[in-house]
Amino acid sequence: MVNEQIDIAIIGGGVSGVYSAWKLKKQFPNQKIVVFEGSDHIGGRLLSVKPPEIPNMTAELGGMRILENTQKLIVDLIDTLNAELPFSEQITLYDFPVDEPQNLAYLRGEYLRLVDFVTRPDKVPYNMSFLEKGNGPGAIIVNAIEQIVPGITNPNLHEAQRRAMTREASFDGVPLYQWGFWNLLYRVISSEGYQFSMDAGGYDSTLVNWNACDAIPWYLSDFGMTPKYKGFCNGFQQVPIALAELFVKDGGEVRLEQQLRGFEYANGQFTLNFNNQDSISAGKLILAMPRRALDLITPESPQLKEIQSLIGSVTPRPLFKLFTTYANPWWRIAGYTNAAGEFVPVQSGRSVTDLPVRQTYYWPNSDGTPAVNGRAMLLASYDDGSNIGYWDGLRPQRSRAWKLGSSHAQIADPFIGDDDGKGTTANGKLNQTWEEYRAPRRMVDEIARQLQQMHGLDYTPLVKSAAFRDWGEDPYGGGWNSWNIGVKSWEVKDQITHPIAGTPLYICGEAYSDSQGWVEGALQTAEIMLGKFMQEPVSDTKQKATVSELQAL
Amino acid sequence: MVNEQIDIAIIGGGVSGVYSAWKLKKQFPNQKIVVFEGSDHIGGRLLSVKPPEIPNMTAELGGMRILENTQKLIVDLIDTLNAELPFSEQITLYDFPVDEPQNLAYLRGEYLRLVDFVTRPDKVPYNMSFLEKGNGPGAIIVNAIEQIVPGITNPNLHEAQRRAMTREASFDGVPLYQWGFWNLLYRVISSEGYQFSMDAGGYDSTLVNWNACDAIPWYLSDFGMTPKYKGFCNGFQQVPIALAELFVKDGGEVRLEQQLRGFEYANGQFTLNFNNQDSISAGKLILAMPRRALDLITPESPQLKEIQSLIGSVTPRPLFKLFTTYANPWWRIAGYTNAAGEFVPVQSGRSVTDLPVRQTYYWPNSDGTPAVNGRAMLLASYDDGSNIGYWDGLRPQRSRAWKLGSSHAQIADPFIGDDDGKGTTANGKLNQTWEEYRAPRRMVDEIARQLQQMHGLDYTPLVKSAAFRDWGEDPYGGGWNSWNIGVKSWEVKDQITHPIAGTPLYICGEAYSDSQGWVEGALQTAEIMLGKFMQEPVSDTKQKATVSELQAL
Repeated sequence: MVNEQIDIAIIGGGVSGVYSAWKLKKQFPNQKIVVFEGSDHIGGRLLSVKPPEIPNMTAELGGMRILENTQKLIVDLIDTLNAELPFSEQITLYDFPVDEPQNLAYLRGEYLRLVDFVTRPDKVPYNMSFLEKGNGPGAIIVNAIEQIVPGITNPNLHEAQRRAMTREASFDGVPLYQWGFWNLLYRVISSEGYQFSMDAGGYDSTLVNWNACDAIPWYLSDFGMTPKYKGFCNGFQQVPIALAELFVKDGGEVRLEQQLRGFEYANGQFTLNFNNQDSISAGKLILAMPRRALDLITPESPQLKEIQSLIGSVTPRPLFKLFTTYANPWWRIAGYTNAAGEFVPVQSGRSVTDLPVRQTYYWPNSDGTPAVNGRAMLLASYDDGSNIGYWDGLRPQRSRAWKLGSSHAQIADPFIGDDDGKGTTANGKLNQTWEEYRAPRRMVDEIARQLQQMHGLDYTPLVKSAAFRDWGEDPYGGGWNSWNIGVKSWEVKDQITHPIAGTPLYICGEAYSDSQGWVEGALQTAEIMLGKFMQEPVSDTKQKATVSELQAL
Repeated sequence: MVNEQIDIAIIGGGVSGVYSAWKLKKQFPNQKIVVFEGSDHIGGRLLSVKPPEIPNMTAELGGMRILENTQKLIVDLIDTLNAELPFSEQITLYDFPVDEPQNLAYLRGEYLRLVDFVTRPDKVPYNMSFLEKGNGPGAIIVNAIEQIVPGITNPNLHEAQRRAMTREASFDGVPLYQWGFWNLLYRVISSEGYQFSMDAGGYDSTLVNWNACDAIPWYLSDFGMTPKYKGFCNGFQQVPIALAELFVKDGGEVRLEQQLRGFEYANGQFTLNFNNQDSISAGKLILAMPRRALDLITPESPQLKEIQSLIGSVTPRPLFKLFTTYANPWWRIAGYTNAAGEFVPVQSGRSVTDLPVRQTYYWPNSDGTPAVNGRAMLLASYDDGSNIGYWDGLRPQRSRAWKLGSSHAQIADPFIGDDDGKGTTANGKLNQTWEEYRAPRRMVDEIARQLQQMHGLDYTPLVKSAAFRDWGEDPYGGGWNSWNIGVKSWEVKDQITHPIAGTPLYICGEAYSDSQGWVEGALQTAEIMLGKFMQEPVSDTKQKATVSELQAL
């Protein structure tokens, strides 16, 4: 039996996989390069769908934005793609709305507006220290970081300089990479300051106990230093889809619904074992996958067993997004009338609460403007960390779907609203639709109840439709990954891209990057990996020899 | 090759294992019955050690008490054992101190005494509802439970009656066993009432999202209904040690440091594979192990793979205990002077805080009286649930030791105080000593810092010595286990004790009981299991035939 023989196999159709494929095909036009994707679509944790009856909005069930002023790789990639793409497929951005002062913070049973953190510190129901009071959650953490690594919050520093500082820094005589971020924060701010920063910050997992050496520059880039967020007018998934299409146009091949179960390397060839088909031989193998996906294939992959300590150097952080649509943007009424007698509505950015729903984004139109009337949409809950267990009680198990071979969990008892069944526009050429991501009914009901409470309203209109994606599901394991305490990430980041000397096995993706949770991180590790890949020129001769050897068996 | 042949193999030297062994040996005196224990001592999650220089105290690194008025099995067992044991080895109990009104609650940066919950509700920094204010944490949960299942808090009901009620009950049209306890509590009390009950209750994992049908009767028995706690004058580990000794005296055999790696069942015989030795054949097999221990051997045990859904019906809850000793009971000064001018010291029971240290027990003398001067000891932190991640940053990884074949993690950087190295009294005949359970230095330092803060003191004396046991470590996985949402525990509890018809495989232990986390639960499932075991009489003939078959191979 002669197996199918390919030159370069890339596992994973997320950004790092299709980006690598696109670059490699340009470099090696005569090589047989194939991207294998386990689900039925390209994009990984980028997933953009159109809600029913709201043609001018796109729901981002996965990644939703970039930092325009610091994420150079994605910004340059968009420019490069736009130069290659026809006018009708140009990738365009809008200013992603940020926290507005009139937005709500419902914390510890008190109704506040975000502006109150600074202007009415005595209303903030956290027993903070004199120095902490009057600051917002970001400022408290930035001040804490400045105490931990003096000088690091100087805005003239670049991220690379900040990373160099945390690599060299110690606290209490212990190097920073051996400290947990949570443990360190507890040493320099009050427990109430920490709790306020967590509750009002909206995210749980950013302040958890991950490697302080990585957490500090990550936090400063993402939250601390006047970030400039941009969203994607036609959805972020447009980027990996465009990359995949250009790769195919150049002669590459994309195969969907191919779950890798394991692989072996012997005699200069990889044997790849997929679900439901014969095995495939490949000369080189690129795993463009996050940690949990690597864990799932490790039992059947001898080479991965050798590098389990590298793979285990990060922790997947579960996270979900749930979108809801309504007949009108009812949240506008939660605004206030200012001194000039004008009504200032709540309409863009987000509100936060310490209820399990945690944070709600008033979703913008595709040009970034707020919805002012007619059908409108909320990113009703964007939730991670400690409330995962709460929602686990109202949704299906996270490990089941992948085992059964499907892309994501089928909801046994889905929410069905008035707008369901009206049909939605397919999004992009790969045809993922809103209906495929139905939300659990009991979860939508509970989120609706908590949204009403956090907005201080006695009535909110019925949900018309809902969509849900839980990135804690296999094979993703999390919405993002964080470096473990004690790991020297600057070494692992380099080693894991080409982990075994002499074996043409490569690993890339957001999980093992400096920009964990961002597309920028996926591109960063893909670039490091491609640099190593290019150092070992592809040898057609050797591969052909090996095929002959196989045939001789 | 003839394997060693035994009649009944029992895996696990915790209470359920040695209790079953003791009972079976009485029933079948001529059978070869062997208990195999992975660690170097008997007791499982009961572990009693003597601190240095404090001869009249015993630290309970594992289970520490019973509920005398409701836990009939353990109470009867103690009576039975005392009838068999010589006078010098009698098991004696003391009244385990409970929360005293003058004890501290340091919550949200405010200093309170426990009595303030009821007498000064406006001082309690939680924005609770009118009906919740003025109640302690237990009363809030009991009132919530009464709303969920009306009538269930009637004190005339027995636990069996309460269990029958929750099995039949529904909430919002959904049967209770399909509800998470946390989800339900959020429907009937305020989020602030829930948070107060969690923070002031001292435990995180009791109020998490486990099966509401089980959580409700469990909570009412453990916390709600005037519990009467008893501690063990010579340590709780005395019970399993006595059982093991009586079993050995009757002709049974106990083998320590035997880690089971997996087993197979064929031709009426189990083949047991242990670390570092030849395999052993057994006619019947009892796994007296918690879920995580079963998970660890499942990959190499075909019969366990068949019943993974039963094994996976509970969740292990990590939990640790850390004890510290001092030159004097410094916490007494945290008392107050009452209206009569008398000083009321803090001296027994526990204090609570929302800091990660969570709860501290002022450890009693072996007769239950408080330490009033001289060397004294604290159960400095008894912590579970959401703070696990905080302490993970300051201690070794939980899965490493077991893989390496050792009983528990060796601490690379242990805390060494003035009293370390002075030698401690061995405890019982199996000789576990305090020194074997050294605590991580950075963890002791941080706990000392938080103890000082929660007691409102500017100075606390140096720690003289510390001991630590993390029950989240393999092979335990948790200090206790909780039933998963959606599971009908009353069916699984029965099925799992003899899970495969016709195969003499039995499972018991706290994990799959009504009294999870208690020795009572271990005894309960052992009794159910023994009932099934007795139904299928032991056939010596068949076993001998099988040995002959093996010899013929």
